[in-house]
Amino acid sequence: MKTQVAIIGGGPSGLLLSQLLHTRGIDSVVLERQTKDYVLSRIRAGVLEQGLLRLMEEAGCADRMHREGFTHDGTLISCGDELFRIDFTEHTGTPVMVYGQTEITRDLYAAREAAGAEIVFSVGSVVIHGADTDAPHVTYEKDGETHRIDCDFIAGCDGFHGVSRQTIPLSVRKEYEKVYPFGWLGILSETQPVNEELIYANSERGFALCSMRNEKLSRYYIQCSLSDKPEDWTDEAFWQELKRRIPADQAEHLVTGPSIEKSIAPLRSFVTEPMQWGRLFLCGDAAHIVPPTGAKGLNTAASDVHYLYNALRDFYEQDTRDGLDGYSQKALARIWKAERFSWWFSSLMHRYPDQSEFDLKMQRAEIEFLRTNAAAQKAMAENYVGLPY
Amino acid sequence: MKTQVAIIGGGPSGLLLSQLLHTRGIDSVVLERQTKDYVLSRIRAGVLEQGLLRLMEEAGCADRMHREGFTHDGTLISCGDELFRIDFTEHTGTPVMVYGQTEITRDLYAAREAAGAEIVFSVGSVVIHGADTDAPHVTYEKDGETHRIDCDFIAGCDGFHGVSRQTIPLSVRKEYEKVYPFGWLGILSETQPVNEELIYANSERGFALCSMRNEKLSRYYIQCSLSDKPEDWTDEAFWQELKRRIPADQAEHLVTGPSIEKSIAPLRSFVTEPMQWGRLFLCGDAAHIVPPTGAKGLNTAASDVHYLYNALRDFYEQDTRDGLDGYSQKALARIWKAERFSWWFSSLMHRYPDQSEFDLKMQRAEIEFLRTNAAAQKAMAENYVGLPY
Repeated sequence: MKTQVAIIGGGPSGLLLSQLLHTRGIDSVVLERQTKDYVLSRIRAGVLEQGLLRLMEEAGCADRMHREGFTHDGTLISCGDELFRIDFTEHTGTPVMVYGQTEITRDLYAAREAAGAEIVFSVGSVVIHGADTDAPHVTYEKDGETHRIDCDFIAGCDGFHGVSRQTIPLSVRKEYEKVYPFGWLGILSETQPVNEELIYANSERGFALCSMRNEKLSRYYIQCSLSDKPEDWTDEAFWQELKRRIPADQAEHLVTGPSIEKSIAPLRSFVTEPMQWGRLFLCGDAAHIVPPTGAKGLNTAASDVHYLYNALRDFYEQDTRDGLDGYSQKALARIWKAERFSWWFSSLMHRYPDQSEFDLKMQRAEIEFLRTNAAAQKAMAENYVGLPY
Repeated sequence: MKTQVAIIGGGPSGLLLSQLLHTRGIDSVVLERQTKDYVLSRIRAGVLEQGLLRLMEEAGCADRMHREGFTHDGTLISCGDELFRIDFTEHTGTPVMVYGQTEITRDLYAAREAAGAEIVFSVGSVVIHGADTDAPHVTYEKDGETHRIDCDFIAGCDGFHGVSRQTIPLSVRKEYEKVYPFGWLGILSETQPVNEELIYANSERGFALCSMRNEKLSRYYIQCSLSDKPEDWTDEAFWQELKRRIPADQAEHLVTGPSIEKSIAPLRSFVTEPMQWGRLFLCGDAAHIVPPTGAKGLNTAASDVHYLYNALRDFYEQDTRDGLDGYSQKALARIWKAERFSWWFSSLMHRYPDQSEFDLKMQRAEIEFLRTNAAAQKAMAENYVGLPY
């Protein structure tokens, strides 16, 4: 098989890139290790920056999102029983959209399939060959046979555990990592969200987040120990703990119900440099991970896709490699800012096992400064809605 | 002896309070453990917030300061060879003033002495009695004799090692502390400052600060190990190290010369709560210490003096205790904000022995965000020029 861009990974980054390239007549093949059903069963964050909305529009996949998504003009932050709001639209002119990552992926599959895209599921043993030459190719196994795709470029959109990053020799790449000493226990419940907007809660008992997918589907998280297991937490215990961590006047209105999903995720900050090696370009989780505080995961992937899509367009339409050569630097400049924001917001909101009483006072003072200072709110809002590409 | 307010400590806080009270006809006695010459030989920071300027004006001691002080409309921050400026006046409408703390102290002594103030030097064994009663008194030794001052109130302006804070029972007070794992090696040199404005420098070799007292007197600091001794550092070694830490185009213009003072100071964050116990009120270093990054030491003392002066005026002129009763809460609210700023600015600019490569990247990303984001610059500028009283 031959294509222009071989895309490893059929999650939202790979699909979005594939669909965007398609709108410019650039051919791609997507290889996905799992089945489509598996990919669509993954539950991820759902707060979208404007940059991602624009890309979905450019990809021709924004109709359902605009119909069913929820525009959020601000977010709530609490510290104990005190609650304040940061107004994104007032500070930046820009809201965010709440629309699940799963829905984004579904919309992209629908568009790709309608266009007759080549997406190969359940592939194994993916190997990237000759990424540092002018004639790379990818091999993979499917139904017991080995296949080969010759291509101009390879987009590594296969996540943190994928083969793409590993293909870049260790002598070339450098990795930066921080592992946080806690996890997030999350549940999905078919209940009305406690508030129209998200609540990020700092409490003496640890962080909590009240989020949602729509008016009837709530997503709640509480900071938990890394040694906890989901089965340690009954629904009842979860709701009790959540209520203790959010302001009393919010807890009063919390509608509880059976969880339809319950899981624990660790928190990690991770970046690999560079994000390019020859004709291989990393996008999204393959190159970087953020802790979920502030919902930058999918949005940072989208910013990579933006830079790579434009670089590939420039290459095919204007015969210039400048965009491709500058990809890693441009993408990383924005990634580090999002990493900083996610790290800062995580540091501000969680309890850490080694926090001294002075450290706790600093956390309180910073929240208090954010509550009372317009410039600090504007800086936070600009990061939350997404810094410019 | 009898007075209205017994002031322990003849540094700038105690003198400023004494002089302000004098302008309203409120009587005070100042007790100082050292000689006047000793007090005037202490070298401290010299970046003054507007709030302190206003207090000096109200105290009638601002003439020389306005004549000889230097207005700074901004400051420079460097990271490696990259230099950028934060414009205080643009972001806040307010500059800061560079005028040495020693000069402030000198001006206050001149005013107090002109007014025939009671300032007792070289006192020993100061003891505060009955601070939690309606009839407190202070005893001290001078020239082998014990003296007693009966008073309405006691202002504890006697610094971190003074007796005032220690007088508050441990069952009542709570202390918060952070000790930084490095010191500042500072020199004073009769040379033209390298730049008209201060340079706060983050470099791979550690922090440096280029400051000044006037056009012919420079004050430079470099981050050093806590185990270093001033005598380990020749002037030549100091200048070499400083040059390596500031941008090359600044180092080129650095005028070096013999140091006329050289010392090492540790860095500490410290706050005691509450700042009042009965009729004893703590001001300045007696209640809190900041690391010197951002020059908040004298300015936080001034904010305490502001609240205490106004509370005492309200008591004597309007017969209300509201100001006095609310002193600790009001003073601490502002102190914690200044503590946060000093801690944040210190964290941003220094090398820490336990910093991971990820932590270093976060520091870089935060400096880069500050360099490029107007809201972040405004938030920093508002803190630097001083949050409102």
